[in-house]
Amino acid sequence: MDYPSILKEIEAEINLNQTRGKVASYIPELARVNPQKYGLHLACMNGDHFSLGHSDEKFSIQSISKVLSLSLAISRLGSRIWSRLDVEPSGNPFNSLIQLEYEDGIPRNPLINSGAIVIADILVSALDHPKKDLLDFVRKLGGSEDIHFNEEVAQSEKEHGFRNYALANMLKSYDNLHNDVEEVLDFYFHQCSIEMSCKELAQTFLLFANEGAIHNTKDRVLTRLQTKRINSLMQTCGFYDEAGEFSFLVGLPGKSGVGGGIVAVHPGEYSVAVWSPRLNKKGNSVLGMKTLELLTTKTGRSIF
Amino acid sequence: MDYPSILKEIEAEINLNQTRGKVASYIPELARVNPQKYGLHLACMNGDHFSLGHSDEKFSIQSISKVLSLSLAISRLGSRIWSRLDVEPSGNPFNSLIQLEYEDGIPRNPLINSGAIVIADILVSALDHPKKDLLDFVRKLGGSEDIHFNEEVAQSEKEHGFRNYALANMLKSYDNLHNDVEEVLDFYFHQCSIEMSCKELAQTFLLFANEGAIHNTKDRVLTRLQTKRINSLMQTCGFYDEAGEFSFLVGLPGKSGVGGGIVAVHPGEYSVAVWSPRLNKKGNSVLGMKTLELLTTKTGRSIF
Amino acid sequence: MDYPSILKEIEAEINLNQTRGKVASYIPELARVNPQKYGLHLACMNGDHFSLGHSDEKFSIQSISKVLSLSLAISRLGSRIWSRLDVEPSGNPFNSLIQLEYEDGIPRNPLINSGAIVIADILVSALDHPKKDLLDFVRKLGGSEDIHFNEEVAQSEKEHGFRNYALANMLKSYDNLHNDVEEVLDFYFHQCSIEMSCKELAQTFLLFANEGAIHNTKDRVLTRLQTKRINSLMQTCGFYDEAGEFSFLVGLPGKSGVGGGIVAVHPGEYSVAVWSPRLNKKGNSVLGMKTLELLTTKTGRSIF
Amino acid sequence: MDYPSILKEIEAEINLNQTRGKVASYIPELARVNPQKYGLHLACMNGDHFSLGHSDEKFSIQSISKVLSLSLAISRLGSRIWSRLDVEPSGNPFNSLIQLEYEDGIPRNPLINSGAIVIADILVSALDHPKKDLLDFVRKLGGSEDIHFNEEVAQSEKEHGFRNYALANMLKSYDNLHNDVEEVLDFYFHQCSIEMSCKELAQTFLLFANEGAIHNTKDRVLTRLQTKRINSLMQTCGFYDEAGEFSFLVGLPGKSGVGGGIVAVHPGEYSVAVWSPRLNKKGNSVLGMKTLELLTTKTGRSIF
Repeated sequence: MDYPSILKEIEAEINLNQTRGKVASYIPELARVNPQKYGLHLACMNGDHFSLGHSDEKFSIQSISKVLSLSLAISRLGSRIWSRLDVEPSGNPFNSLIQLEYEDGIPRNPLINSGAIVIADILVSALDHPKKDLLDFVRKLGGSEDIHFNEEVAQSEKEHGFRNYALANMLKSYDNLHNDVEEVLDFYFHQCSIEMSCKELAQTFLLFANEGAIHNTKDRVLTRLQTKRINSLMQTCGFYDEAGEFSFLVGLPGKSGVGGGIVAVHPGEYSVAVWSPRLNKKGNSVLGMKTLELLTTKTGRSIF
Repeated sequence: MDYPSILKEIEAEINLNQTRGKVASYIPELARVNPQKYGLHLACMNGDHFSLGHSDEKFSIQSISKVLSLSLAISRLGSRIWSRLDVEPSGNPFNSLIQLEYEDGIPRNPLINSGAIVIADILVSALDHPKKDLLDFVRKLGGSEDIHFNEEVAQSEKEHGFRNYALANMLKSYDNLHNDVEEVLDFYFHQCSIEMSCKELAQTFLLFANEGAIHNTKDRVLTRLQTKRINSLMQTCGFYDEAGEFSFLVGLPGKSGVGGGIVAVHPGEYSVAVWSPRLNKKGNSVLGMKTLELLTTKTGRSIF
Repeated sequence: MDYPSILKEIEAEINLNQTRGKVASYIPELARVNPQKYGLHLACMNGDHFSLGHSDEKFSIQSISKVLSLSLAISRLGSRIWSRLDVEPSGNPFNSLIQLEYEDGIPRNPLINSGAIVIADILVSALDHPKKDLLDFVRKLGGSEDIHFNEEVAQSEKEHGFRNYALANMLKSYDNLHNDVEEVLDFYFHQCSIEMSCKELAQTFLLFANEGAIHNTKDRVLTRLQTKRINSLMQTCGFYDEAGEFSFLVGLPGKSGVGGGIVAVHPGEYSVAVWSPRLNKKGNSVLGMKTLELLTTKTGRSIF
Repeated sequence: MDYPSILKEIEAEINLNQTRGKVASYIPELARVNPQKYGLHLACMNGDHFSLGHSDEKFSIQSISKVLSLSLAISRLGSRIWSRLDVEPSGNPFNSLIQLEYEDGIPRNPLINSGAIVIADILVSALDHPKKDLLDFVRKLGGSEDIHFNEEVAQSEKEHGFRNYALANMLKSYDNLHNDVEEVLDFYFHQCSIEMSCKELAQTFLLFANEGAIHNTKDRVLTRLQTKRINSLMQTCGFYDEAGEFSFLVGLPGKSGVGGGIVAVHPGEYSVAVWSPRLNKKGNSVLGMKTLELLTTKTGRSIF
């Protein structure tokens, strides 16, 4: 596959000056980002790497972290975690409480906020040093020590995250949160505040293209079956109430974050991370989705 | 891949005498089926065919027909159809009216009842001889003239299908049904009454493993992009409110029907149809799901 | 109470030329009404009668008929009817299917469409000549033989009433409709098409101010307890998702119809009917509500 | 009206040894109450007082306090409060978050938890010494200085009230809570912890039978119109998703609490408080509802 030419075509077709979509602004720390930023990094299983734009610049990975915390939880506890949450698409906004109440406190899946908070609770119980251990895990996958929390972002989420406090208290009211709300949310807000570049993200998610082993070191982190299942969850649940649209247009498992990042995986082939801060109404990066649609259309290859 | 051995293992592990699950009984014609029936047919892209049990016996394909009517609509009208329905998983039972009302008469996707009724309406408008044309289309894909409606089943659905009448009238109240309710439902009930064997179904769905061309004749029915999108829809929406579970356990696009059939597709590799009439609470075949989970686990291969 | 002066004040304060609100237009027969029509009739228990404007002109009573069909059902079958529907306010639009599905086919109350259709089904089963018997019942209460169905309105409702067909089929799917959908809806659409004047309506509803006996003839139609309960239902459920607002502003049990009529009852004191075709967004007459709010505010008397 | 005889009949008919219903047990402080307690106090506008059983024993008034905090808010701020909450029945359990999310953070009415928390927020902003001022207000209405918070109950609610924390945080996320969650809930939990006897409650609620003036002192607290509207709210919203049932069976405005108390008002006639700790599934006192149904049936008088 001639990726350099395809990326060149994509760069030519994408209108980087377009102004559709809005930068996330519910906390000032996210609102300050330059909306014109655009980066892409493609990491191939054969060792090739390709990039576009600001691919080395770090940004807030936000909900993309949910795949990482889920992977850590599965690597430690295996399938036991599924007694506390489900694996179905939600068909609702990421922070909705409606389904949680109708379904008696069992989150639909680990990639919406309520489910990710349950995973955070599981990790707070299971890990000796939850925040440090999560960071170590991400650094190991990404092959870089230079991955950190953004304390200001975490603090700001804490001050403005009333909806997440509502979710955590709802879970608590259903006995599906075992630790203190504050402790779990402190972990959760830190997890969301991790900053990574497209390059680091693509490197990290190569794990899911590689059947669960770290590409560089060959260390096995997840079993083949666990990896398949996480990919399946990204496919059906990775884009909130736009999961079907992403699957339909792009045809790859992936996960987005309100920082404007999207990461997608073609098992056996590559992982790819894109970053562009302007979000559509569903909270997904406008140019990120367009870029990935062009990528799978131009290569003529997706998982389908 | 040594499919003969794997199928032998599956046959050994599946307990054909198990009695979990119930045969669909909302119409007498479906309730009469022998619950112990079990068949499987695997059609490989390389021309190999493998089968188990009652793989040549015809059964009511029911909702599996939704993929076929959708394909016919897309092959005739292309992406215009998407102005009248969405591509998102529903997270609700197949015949729910709740989401349809919340979303002002736009069905979530074409693989739940409301969406399939809109597709039926589109075909009734677009085709000269709707029922005959659909049957011809299915026969062409399946490479067999011996595929028919079951008039008794269609008639019985008409007499007991109050929920479908409710859905069609709701769509009509939102101006999202252009033909008469009776005419559309007559087509829809006939579509669901089609009877096929596992062998015929696997042959028919090889289209979706083959980028939209009929495997035997090489006739192109769908573009590569259209095929990818239909596969994506099966992946995210093919199993009602159990789509995530199927994707999680099996990892292939597929579609089930209350007749006990499930068909799944591994693009580029094979299509596979299973039949076992006992259904779980979500309306999907218990042994069918188990069989396909074993298949992708034992082969170690899925789309993820 | 000096009703003549109070009515004069109301007439002076109400702006009959105001243009807020829209005439119901889902069927042409209702859309043709002159939006400037305004009538009021107050029938007191002491035998006094007062009126304003077009109080003798007939209009389509529409949902006001639900109180009359309910009364007939209760007078014939007593409390047995409550096994098939509930007595709780719905908090949802009058024709919503959402609650009906969540609550497994048991309508919230007899004054929303789904509940009124169940009452229609009960009457179709219980009466020898359902339509004639209903009309006779209403004529007896109203003391007038000159009360009729409007066949054109009934026919038009049948042709456009897709939402009601959806509701009836949903009820049927839950086994909460015993007769044919067509037969029940034919009765229901006729019931809604009854035409009465403010004077006839006020006379008819004096029954509910008079503990269940016809005021003129002293014939007992309902027991005191049955009357209290029907008044309670009007109070909590008579105005769709605006029942609280009406109760809050007016403080009387009442019922509205999309023909622009509202009838209200002060037990022991009077019944009052108002007519003005412009409806607010909830489907209730703008001037009708305003008139009744002024009436209870100026008299300083309500049930509270 | 011969109340003594009627109360004697009620006492004879009510089976005080019945064991239907369960004492509220979500906090240990409420679970400790003797389930066999039963008291009634009837305070008539003509000055007569009648009582049964443990009518002088204090119990936790819980949600009955919502009427008192609402009255204080209305007496201080008038109709301005209605910009932040609605007056419609909810048709949902008292602590549901579903409707709050569907309706963008505007509570349905002030007598469900979300609405009462908004009222608490309003009072925290408006009062110099919120908790003290509320207590003073209740003492003035009840004509007794011996009315207190139960600090243990308030503390226990704080420790177990995750659902209320969820509601408050949801309100905050919609900008419909102006003060800190902790401060508002501290007030709210104290308000719910007030302990009063049937006698004190009946005396207090005589305000609503007396057009808004304190019966003994003739001090005006609410206007006649405000009183009417609060009575209307009790009528349509006072019993959670059983408001229709209570209105239907009893026919009086009223309010219940999970401490087992119910207070009801017949404007111009009397107020009545009953206490029996066993609750039905909707959270309302089993014997309390039965007692009031018997009272209005035997007297033959209700507001309808």
